[in-house]
Amino acid sequence: MTQHTSRHYEQELETLKEKILLLGGKVEEMIASAMKSLLSRDPGLARRVIASDREVDSGELEIDHLCLSLLALRQPAASDLRFIATALKIVTDLERIGDLAVNIAERSIELSEEPPLKPYIDIPRMASAATGMVKEALDAFVKREPRLAIEVLQADSAVDQLNVQLFRELLTYMIEEPKNVSRALRITFIAKYLERVADHATNIAQMVIFMCEGRDVRHPGLRIADAAPEK
Amino acid sequence: MTQHTSRHYEQELETLKEKILLLGGKVEEMIASAMKSLLSRDPGLARRVIASDREVDSGELEIDHLCLSLLALRQPAASDLRFIATALKIVTDLERIGDLAVNIAERSIELSEEPPLKPYIDIPRMASAATGMVKEALDAFVKREPRLAIEVLQADSAVDQLNVQLFRELLTYMIEEPKNVSRALRITFIAKYLERVADHATNIAQMVIFMCEGRDVRHPGLRIADAAPEK
Repeated sequence: MTQHTSRHYEQELETLKEKILLLGGKVEEMIASAMKSLLSRDPGLARRVIASDREVDSGELEIDHLCLSLLALRQPAASDLRFIATALKIVTDLERIGDLAVNIAERSIELSEEPPLKPYIDIPRMASAATGMVKEALDAFVKREPRLAIEVLQADSAVDQLNVQLFRELLTYMIEEPKNVSRALRITFIAKYLERVADHATNIAQMVIFMCEGRDVRHPGLRIADAAPEK
Repeated sequence: MTQHTSRHYEQELETLKEKILLLGGKVEEMIASAMKSLLSRDPGLARRVIASDREVDSGELEIDHLCLSLLALRQPAASDLRFIATALKIVTDLERIGDLAVNIAERSIELSEEPPLKPYIDIPRMASAATGMVKEALDAFVKREPRLAIEVLQADSAVDQLNVQLFRELLTYMIEEPKNVSRALRITFIAKYLERVADHATNIAQMVIFMCEGRDVRHPGLRIADAAPEK
């Protein structure tokens, strides 16, 4: 590789990082706006979140395309190869977080058509914890820093905990009063969507650790050596 | 590439296909067993489904490893590169279908501890439609056959339809009788898991079409040309 192409290659890797951070920022913002539309009962904002999903889709496509072209033209070895393969996987998680923001916005529109059931307390906490995890997982990815990724894994149980707590509370609402059922169900679904955002962040973090260490934290106890072809 | 290494390379691509089909068969079987445990109220079978998730995890790891080694050592060009990049993404979907089978098995154990709420009619239909979609999407992938993938996309709305229908029915159960709420909710969740299995099949099918045609059916209206870097 000449010095010139090598500099160009480095630039393309930088572009890949930037695009992934941009897409991550975009989906975090979509979750935040969907939550804002829920709290302020603003269906117009929810509809803007739904419309903005198209930008995420084109961002995903762009990144896939850049990864394929890096793989085809630069033939990266070892750690860069892992980085690009991980980028290909991460971008799918980001796109699905965008879809979850759309799902939250849809439930927010439905809920804005009925009287409020109860003040939202745990849901905004779940949202900020989950988007914080996404941010940190992407940070771990671009810095190739497994310690940051491990912190993301540790944060996941707090989100699960909030979800369980909220689920119990909403179950009580549903059992006490049949006319609460449909609203409480919609809020339950929003909590599930946020739990899945946190799960995507966890998946990204696990892939980052695997990328950095060649060790599979996705499935503790497994090593690459365990994954030998069947005898 | 010598004739010898070229033959070896072809064999490795065949192995990749076989491993993906095997993993696909494994997760389809997990969904089927989780459903069987639900219908026959067999928590022992559900626990075996949960335990078998470890095999899916090691299968995923194996396939990732094989893809990385094909990318590093064989430097595939054009269509094989797309094929391997798609394999990297597909395997993540398969692993998550395995997780959804585990989720169904967990709800099945909980439901086996309470008296039956109602006979299951739509849920087994959803399960067989969703796993059929997974099978067909993987078939489209290994055969590199976009027409098969398009059929998968068309099947998705039937599963969504069943889910909406079931959701309405369960909502009625919950509203009529508070003591039904927790069981009806668990069944609602199982329907959602199956809907997500179908969504994963849809994702796989979309990636296959993109792989074969370089056209993005994931996001209709978008072309690779649209995904040019920002000005």
